[in-house]
Amino acid sequence: MKAAGVIVEYNPFHNGHWHHLQETKKKTGADCLIAVMSGNFLQRGEPAIVSKWARTKMALAAGVDLVIELPYVFAVQAAEQFAHGAVRLLDALGCRELCFGSESGDITAFLSAVETLFQRKEEFDSLVRAGLARGQSFPKANAEAWRQLGSVPLDLSKPNNVLGFAYVKAIQQNKLAIVPRTIPRLAAGYHDESFSHPSIASATSLRNALGQTGQLERIAAYIPSATAEQLRQYRLTYGRWHDWEMYFPLLKYRLLTATEEELRRIAGVEEGIEYRLKQKIAGAETFAAFIAATKTKRYTWTRLQRLCAHVLTNFTKEEQNKAMAPTYIRLLGMNETGRRYLQQVKKELALPLAAKAAKLNGDPLYEQEKKATAVYAAAFPEPLYSAALKEEYATAPIYSSGIERK
Amino acid sequence: MKAAGVIVEYNPFHNGHWHHLQETKKKTGADCLIAVMSGNFLQRGEPAIVSKWARTKMALAAGVDLVIELPYVFAVQAAEQFAHGAVRLLDALGCRELCFGSESGDITAFLSAVETLFQRKEEFDSLVRAGLARGQSFPKANAEAWRQLGSVPLDLSKPNNVLGFAYVKAIQQNKLAIVPRTIPRLAAGYHDESFSHPSIASATSLRNALGQTGQLERIAAYIPSATAEQLRQYRLTYGRWHDWEMYFPLLKYRLLTATEEELRRIAGVEEGIEYRLKQKIAGAETFAAFIAATKTKRYTWTRLQRLCAHVLTNFTKEEQNKAMAPTYIRLLGMNETGRRYLQQVKKELALPLAAKAAKLNGDPLYEQEKKATAVYAAAFPEPLYSAALKEEYATAPIYSSGIERK
Repeated sequence: MKAAGVIVEYNPFHNGHWHHLQETKKKTGADCLIAVMSGNFLQRGEPAIVSKWARTKMALAAGVDLVIELPYVFAVQAAEQFAHGAVRLLDALGCRELCFGSESGDITAFLSAVETLFQRKEEFDSLVRAGLARGQSFPKANAEAWRQLGSVPLDLSKPNNVLGFAYVKAIQQNKLAIVPRTIPRLAAGYHDESFSHPSIASATSLRNALGQTGQLERIAAYIPSATAEQLRQYRLTYGRWHDWEMYFPLLKYRLLTATEEELRRIAGVEEGIEYRLKQKIAGAETFAAFIAATKTKRYTWTRLQRLCAHVLTNFTKEEQNKAMAPTYIRLLGMNETGRRYLQQVKKELALPLAAKAAKLNGDPLYEQEKKATAVYAAAFPEPLYSAALKEEYATAPIYSSGIERK
Repeated sequence: MKAAGVIVEYNPFHNGHWHHLQETKKKTGADCLIAVMSGNFLQRGEPAIVSKWARTKMALAAGVDLVIELPYVFAVQAAEQFAHGAVRLLDALGCRELCFGSESGDITAFLSAVETLFQRKEEFDSLVRAGLARGQSFPKANAEAWRQLGSVPLDLSKPNNVLGFAYVKAIQQNKLAIVPRTIPRLAAGYHDESFSHPSIASATSLRNALGQTGQLERIAAYIPSATAEQLRQYRLTYGRWHDWEMYFPLLKYRLLTATEEELRRIAGVEEGIEYRLKQKIAGAETFAAFIAATKTKRYTWTRLQRLCAHVLTNFTKEEQNKAMAPTYIRLLGMNETGRRYLQQVKKELALPLAAKAAKLNGDPLYEQEKKATAVYAAAFPEPLYSAALKEEYATAPIYSSGIERK
């Protein structure tokens, strides 16, 4: 059996993701699709709209064969760390193919950009430092540095190009035997908030269209029926979907009761931002208003959102610095193909495979996952709070007996 | 002018407190009554039913002339520290009389008990240590040690005798020129939950009778009309009164996301209780169920409740150890008599008088008060959360123009 990997968030799973899976199979000739998926908190520092379990079911229904959790310590990070954790997990699973969606759609552009970076690293780094010194944000300084290097056939101001670049770079830096491939994303860009295609729209635009009270029919054309079903069931069970505003009271409580010294221990708290956080929080009545009041050129919306996720989950610099690479492979779900693939590779797995969360107690990466789980569940009133906690620890990996057609 | 002090919580103010004030005036011949009052969190580790401001208004309406805040770092403590902070504040205000209610009602019993303790300290301490070693709680070991010393005319298993004893001891240890006096409490004991007197009932029984949905009419016979009015207004403004259950989601969030190491820094976390807290919290759906599941012979309900208040407000051992004595006199309210008294003593005040909270920023005692304020306000949804925070910082001391008759 041959496996191909995808690195995903599925927030929620939509037709563009379906297309990505079909193209991945076609391009790689793989008979097993492995998705490395963020858990309950996502790369941009947001809580996922529904839990990892509901999103795992969406993925399995769409034909993913194995769903593996990307631990919080890699999932809620800028592109470089995110990519590092994800490709290391694929490698540990014996997966030799990675296929990602990008605005570019041309893998040679990525390979050449990474080669340029390795060759001209000093020059590049000094351009980035100069940008930072001029008060630019990291993403801005990076994009600018690329522009100044010239002749790079990759637009690194586009978010999915940035991620793809990070994957290719991580593969090469880790000297992994993984072949990277890319397919062009269809129609909607990540940040697109309009519906310009009859069946493809970005996850962001879908979440916006949905809101908290939104009718699922409004987005039915853009998602498989299994996604609609999972979203519907989740709201039935838990009363609502997740968004940052649900967590704002906890964030406010924490920012007001933590000392500046304690905040400085949190990952991402640099350059005195702790004073600004404490200064802006008391009068803020919503998360959106708080971030709008706090953000600066250097502290972009995404960076602040990620930092707030770290404050909320009490993720410290010390924990971040210790998280060099994945220490386990946590199985969230599989179908028969996935099961057979695991059977085939299990003796060569580079990391322990964990089906039950209880086995991971004490692992520093999983300890942070537990904190993130506690926060994610805290959005609910009792007895749902306790029930959601229990789900994390008691749920066996989802086993799906077949693929649903959309 | 002659001042007499009382040390109070007024949770809420009731007819027994009224009686205490009348007797204090009679016994001391004072023309100015000073109440040192706990802020939003109380000695037994509970949030006050209504804010310090509402309770200040109750006190002023009943004829208290000056209301001074007992800072959190003394207010939420076992009897000894509580008494220490309170009598030092009275002393700093030039107050030379203290009158407390007790089950005993006989000041010579207190004086003789304190003298006994000073004379037989070693013996007493070794009896307490032996009790603790047998697994007894502190209050139990203390009461037992007294019993074993014999011939002490004071029942130190009674809560108000314990507090009174602590006041007298603190006065003597600090060598303060304060005359302690006591009056017998009427009818209901602190822990009484029944109504056995036509107009006097304990604050505990009143809160129980009231509940969250309770009709004020049910307790009208036991409280002055000003108390009823404050309770009514508070619920109109904020939607509810305060109790521990409102804070349980925050406590659960905090206990689940703090590491054991972080919990060990919290005041009152000793002997490995942090493991037990973390073990019991995940499945607990209410505060009451959590404490019931967690308590042991050594960790009594009150001790755990106080410890949970410290977890919630992030009050550390380091902060506790630094809090040797009050560093300011915070004025919560006054009437004309109180104003004139302050005028008279202001040149001899042993501590700075603070009418505005903003002036106290940076004072370690007030920094903890701010954390407690943030927690207390966190019980409300926005925009009430922000409004309650603002109330703490923007409210000038309450000025009352006259005494209301009950």
